[in-house]
Amino acid sequence: MATSPTRTRLDLDRRRRQLVEIGLDLFSERAYDEIAIDDIAAAAGISKGLLYHYFPSKRDFYVEVIREAATVLRARTEPDSSLPPLERLNASIDAYLDHVEQHARGHATLLRGGIGTDPEVRAIVDENRRISAQRIIDAIVEQGGDPTPAVRLAVRGWIGFVEAVSLDWVERREVARDDVRALLVQTLEWAVSSAAGAPGPPV
Amino acid sequence: MATSPTRTRLDLDRRRRQLVEIGLDLFSERAYDEIAIDDIAAAAGISKGLLYHYFPSKRDFYVEVIREAATVLRARTEPDSSLPPLERLNASIDAYLDHVEQHARGHATLLRGGIGTDPEVRAIVDENRRISAQRIIDAIVEQGGDPTPAVRLAVRGWIGFVEAVSLDWVERREVARDDVRALLVQTLEWAVSSAAGAPGPPV
Repeated sequence: MATSPTRTRLDLDRRRRQLVEIGLDLFSERAYDEIAIDDIAAAAGISKGLLYHYFPSKRDFYVEVIREAATVLRARTEPDSSLPPLERLNASIDAYLDHVEQHARGHATLLRGGIGTDPEVRAIVDENRRISAQRIIDAIVEQGGDPTPAVRLAVRGWIGFVEAVSLDWVERREVARDDVRALLVQTLEWAVSSAAGAPGPPV
Repeated sequence: MATSPTRTRLDLDRRRRQLVEIGLDLFSERAYDEIAIDDIAAAAGISKGLLYHYFPSKRDFYVEVIREAATVLRARTEPDSSLPPLERLNASIDAYLDHVEQHARGHATLLRGGIGTDPEVRAIVDENRRISAQRIIDAIVEQGGDPTPAVRLAVRGWIGFVEAVSLDWVERREVARDDVRALLVQTLEWAVSSAAGAPGPPV
């Protein structure tokens, strides 16, 4: 029985998406270099040859997994405009910390490891940073704040703060999660308020 | 005329140090991938063959340059204990911003580029981060503060803030240097104060 080209294409897309889902689990628990193409094929229950039919290399597979993880993270941390500003920020940071906890090893690999400097991977990470910064700047504007270059600098710096804090937090596990969230929220408020030239921090 | 082994060894060390000095200039202005081994030999006025006599590869040469840059940075940002705490911090941050300005391209390559994930290069960068965090923790203790895990987490996160802010600052040049320093100093104070569970930021 001949399959139509359309049907074949749909199957291919569906199968690729299933494989990417498996990759999300694998790369969350182990670092890029610890996973062989054989492990991926075994986890998917298919032959290595068939895996190569869907993705030309482990690196190509990884790029798709990271793209998917970035999309999921963006959706999970999407600001909920029905909430007041502070609760909205708290909710987004909670979602971010959930993500870091669930993908601890993979997250560390992405931000610290060798594959994190692959140009395509870096572009995905940088785009997510840009979107995170923009969401915060939008919230500042919405609250009547002036997004001066200094304020934007503070916000982009804070993204670096969030990454460094969250990597260190999941590695050591010495600080309660609620305290981490409070630290992130307060530091953002105060950094922005300092950059805005406020005489003192907001109360 | 035969040279003694001691004399030869001294010459070798001296020559290697001179080459590393040249490398500091080269890698400050251009990214790792933009510099060929021929460029290094030309800048040093020696043949490529002779350069390989001192360093087996461009990567080995780069590792030595980064090691030297890290040592210089540590010395320049060494806290001056004759100053009161706030001025001491301001002076160290000024020295750090000087360094970032002088080595703008090289600094960005180190923290963002491909070579930054070479295990030996990363070990050098991580060691400098660890020392920076420890200096701040020492200052907190000296002022009677309690270096709880949350405070340490805030300090390590702040190192990420400093890196993100300084990279963004030299790239865009939209914010005055004094404002950048004030942002870094205030954000440290407030992040630490938040992590220490203070009811509000210090005045």
